[in-house]
Amino acid sequence: MNRKLAAEFFGTYWLVFGGCGSAVLAAGFPELGIGFAGVALAFGLTVLTMAYAVGGISGGHFNPAVSLGLAVAGRFSYASLLPYWAAQVLGGIAAAVVLYIIASGAPEFVAGGFASNGYGELSPGKFGLLACLVAEVVLTAFFLIIILGATSKGVPAGFAPIAIGLGLTLIHLVSIPVTNTSVNPARSTAVAFFAQTGAVGQLWLFWVAPLIGAALGGLVWKLLLDKDAQVAPTASGLTPA
Amino acid sequence: MNRKLAAEFFGTYWLVFGGCGSAVLAAGFPELGIGFAGVALAFGLTVLTMAYAVGGISGGHFNPAVSLGLAVAGRFSYASLLPYWAAQVLGGIAAAVVLYIIASGAPEFVAGGFASNGYGELSPGKFGLLACLVAEVVLTAFFLIIILGATSKGVPAGFAPIAIGLGLTLIHLVSIPVTNTSVNPARSTAVAFFAQTGAVGQLWLFWVAPLIGAALGGLVWKLLLDKDAQVAPTASGLTPA
Amino acid sequence: MNRKLAAEFFGTYWLVFGGCGSAVLAAGFPELGIGFAGVALAFGLTVLTMAYAVGGISGGHFNPAVSLGLAVAGRFSYASLLPYWAAQVLGGIAAAVVLYIIASGAPEFVAGGFASNGYGELSPGKFGLLACLVAEVVLTAFFLIIILGATSKGVPAGFAPIAIGLGLTLIHLVSIPVTNTSVNPARSTAVAFFAQTGAVGQLWLFWVAPLIGAALGGLVWKLLLDKDAQVAPTASGLTPA
Amino acid sequence: MNRKLAAEFFGTYWLVFGGCGSAVLAAGFPELGIGFAGVALAFGLTVLTMAYAVGGISGGHFNPAVSLGLAVAGRFSYASLLPYWAAQVLGGIAAAVVLYIIASGAPEFVAGGFASNGYGELSPGKFGLLACLVAEVVLTAFFLIIILGATSKGVPAGFAPIAIGLGLTLIHLVSIPVTNTSVNPARSTAVAFFAQTGAVGQLWLFWVAPLIGAALGGLVWKLLLDKDAQVAPTASGLTPA
Repeated sequence: MNRKLAAEFFGTYWLVFGGCGSAVLAAGFPELGIGFAGVALAFGLTVLTMAYAVGGISGGHFNPAVSLGLAVAGRFSYASLLPYWAAQVLGGIAAAVVLYIIASGAPEFVAGGFASNGYGELSPGKFGLLACLVAEVVLTAFFLIIILGATSKGVPAGFAPIAIGLGLTLIHLVSIPVTNTSVNPARSTAVAFFAQTGAVGQLWLFWVAPLIGAALGGLVWKLLLDKDAQVAPTASGLTPA
Repeated sequence: MNRKLAAEFFGTYWLVFGGCGSAVLAAGFPELGIGFAGVALAFGLTVLTMAYAVGGISGGHFNPAVSLGLAVAGRFSYASLLPYWAAQVLGGIAAAVVLYIIASGAPEFVAGGFASNGYGELSPGKFGLLACLVAEVVLTAFFLIIILGATSKGVPAGFAPIAIGLGLTLIHLVSIPVTNTSVNPARSTAVAFFAQTGAVGQLWLFWVAPLIGAALGGLVWKLLLDKDAQVAPTASGLTPA
Repeated sequence: MNRKLAAEFFGTYWLVFGGCGSAVLAAGFPELGIGFAGVALAFGLTVLTMAYAVGGISGGHFNPAVSLGLAVAGRFSYASLLPYWAAQVLGGIAAAVVLYIIASGAPEFVAGGFASNGYGELSPGKFGLLACLVAEVVLTAFFLIIILGATSKGVPAGFAPIAIGLGLTLIHLVSIPVTNTSVNPARSTAVAFFAQTGAVGQLWLFWVAPLIGAALGGLVWKLLLDKDAQVAPTASGLTPA
Repeated sequence: MNRKLAAEFFGTYWLVFGGCGSAVLAAGFPELGIGFAGVALAFGLTVLTMAYAVGGISGGHFNPAVSLGLAVAGRFSYASLLPYWAAQVLGGIAAAVVLYIIASGAPEFVAGGFASNGYGELSPGKFGLLACLVAEVVLTAFFLIIILGATSKGVPAGFAPIAIGLGLTLIHLVSIPVTNTSVNPARSTAVAFFAQTGAVGQLWLFWVAPLIGAALGGLVWKLLLDKDAQVAPTASGLTPA
């Protein structure tokens, strides 16, 4: 179990460090900055790379909503949920601390939103609460469908990290303007406390919406799509092989 | 059959939600927007991710033209064509409804073209009808050649979603300025009714051209390229394995 | 042989239509255009997609320099060189004709360079002849090393089109400013005659440099790197499997 | 051994030529330039392509820090470290020479930083020494975790170059504004001597930080993550198969 939690810790560290790091350090660099598309690619590649690196150890969730959705679909044990969530949140916070140390090394550094998620005034495009709720629920639900499908028996071993990682890139390509894209409560929590905005007061949405979406995605998969529905579910989590 | 239609419904939902969603919400965001290249990537990744997730269930068409082209090439049953088309169009429309709910949550929202396809005055670059017709026919034909080739026996299992998804990205990289890129009547239909332009009146072209192109691609494959031409065709549709 | 030549014809058609098409139609679109990076991605994806689709039929060269380099390395028959070259050049020209029909459907269309290659005054960044010669030789040489290595026995079946396609993307990321990137005489020839510049008069360089580079790359592989050097070479060309 | 060193020479040549080449020649091209995101993609694709091409020969390090980290993790022989380092540095320098010849073929060429790495005044975003040190250590450590994980037994053969190459892309998406991204002493050394800045005087950091980070990553993998820890380590380096 310890190696699994270490894998989730380092994986979520990398997700926050790489994804939020690209947003804080590189997105708006004058003239040559990577923009929302570069940030979307970075978030996806954190998951793609770590799913290959440690997915075989812990299942490669790196996201409390993913762990829940897998449990709902019968692919992960509810008993492991809390330790996984703890490792994920701690990994994310550790990354935010180190990212803050680096970012504050720039002259005239201002934390600003620090890549936090938000709705209304704190949404990049000022989208209202309902729009943000719907976006996070729908996108997390499909993220789970992608994860459950890409790790099902029909897909040859080894391709899941590509589908899942680039799925997260796609989710960001759509929704950075809406909520700055969460679909991951650990990622939202990690940076909220460093933001010089009211991000902490909006953090509830980025636990509630991804968790609802993930549970929904797990149910849709289980009830409508799973082609192994008749097979006894395993509780071993997803493994790339 | 029900699970197949559910797979086509959710797959086409994702194609429209992710592809058109990135165009409506993120393409033109001030300074950091993802531009046509980001939209092209998003469309491709919707197909890549869903082909891994549910391609093994339904064959992963998500597109009435693809279903037709596969039937012409002897890889899909004509009898299944209409139910597939219905599931695809309904999935696309459901996505457009949810996308509209999210998009209208932005202050000073204007639907505008709502990522619809068009020619002449409704073409992003004001390309005429003939140019748009030729572009859609040629690009859909090659899309089918890619699909048929990447799912043929010579290619190891698991790579087809990469070839097909990134093929759709390539098609968008070329032709968003021309027609806003359809090659998919379900995608065009889904958003046309939300556009505040004459998109509905031009919808015919985005059924006619992709269907002609797909049939042409299926024929070219079958007559000139298919290396298993002597083998009895299966009617099981494409499966990633 | 006919099916092989058809595969080379359609593959090179797609390379020119997709690659040069993205450059002519989408690169410089106001505000949302895909830029050099989008064009680089498009060129690479033409090869990635067609290598999966028809690589198993013809070997997937789509490029006279690649055919030569493979022959030098002992992987392709010199006797097939001329028919392959003919199919490649004809496929490219067919694509340029159709691309011209589409492009001229835009109001106020001007052919300009029409994505042709050039040096000196016709180089996008006005690079001189020597710089252009060196760039094309070195990049084509490495392109061949990538192709020969990725299709050697040590690499599991199915990955070669990813390595080769994205290798071509990389080559474009480096050198579009220098020569507009050729490394492929068929691609250069196809569009030169549509350019309203002196591109035809410079076409010689884009046969000479890629062919020299490809031969060099074939030699470097054969003499310094090939780990199967002791094995009798096959004359069957590269196959993804 | 000679073929291994040739593979490291050509691989590192390609890394510097492709990665630094895209930065010097294409990043800032007026209007259509590829920006930091394009450079990040280029660096990653140099490793992805060469890992497929020659990774089976030498292990595909192309980076002194990677060789060290693999040795620390018990996957590479310390005795081979110095010859590998020499081949890597020489390959990088050869690439910088050829790149200089091409780049100086542009009218009004100025070498400027020539894609060199730096901190403080020589950091693209003027990040201080501490921030640059932390960034290089952390990013190199995770690069090694990705490499060690993606080449471990749990991952099916053939996917490692994708994870490793795109991991390097991710690292650049985050940190080009900080240090211009090294994580590779050979890459830093190769271009430093061509820079018209004080890059040579700062070169020490881009040996010290990546080497510390790589050793750290090797230790973290070995002590906390390696699921084959009980197995006797092989000294054969990483092979894609």
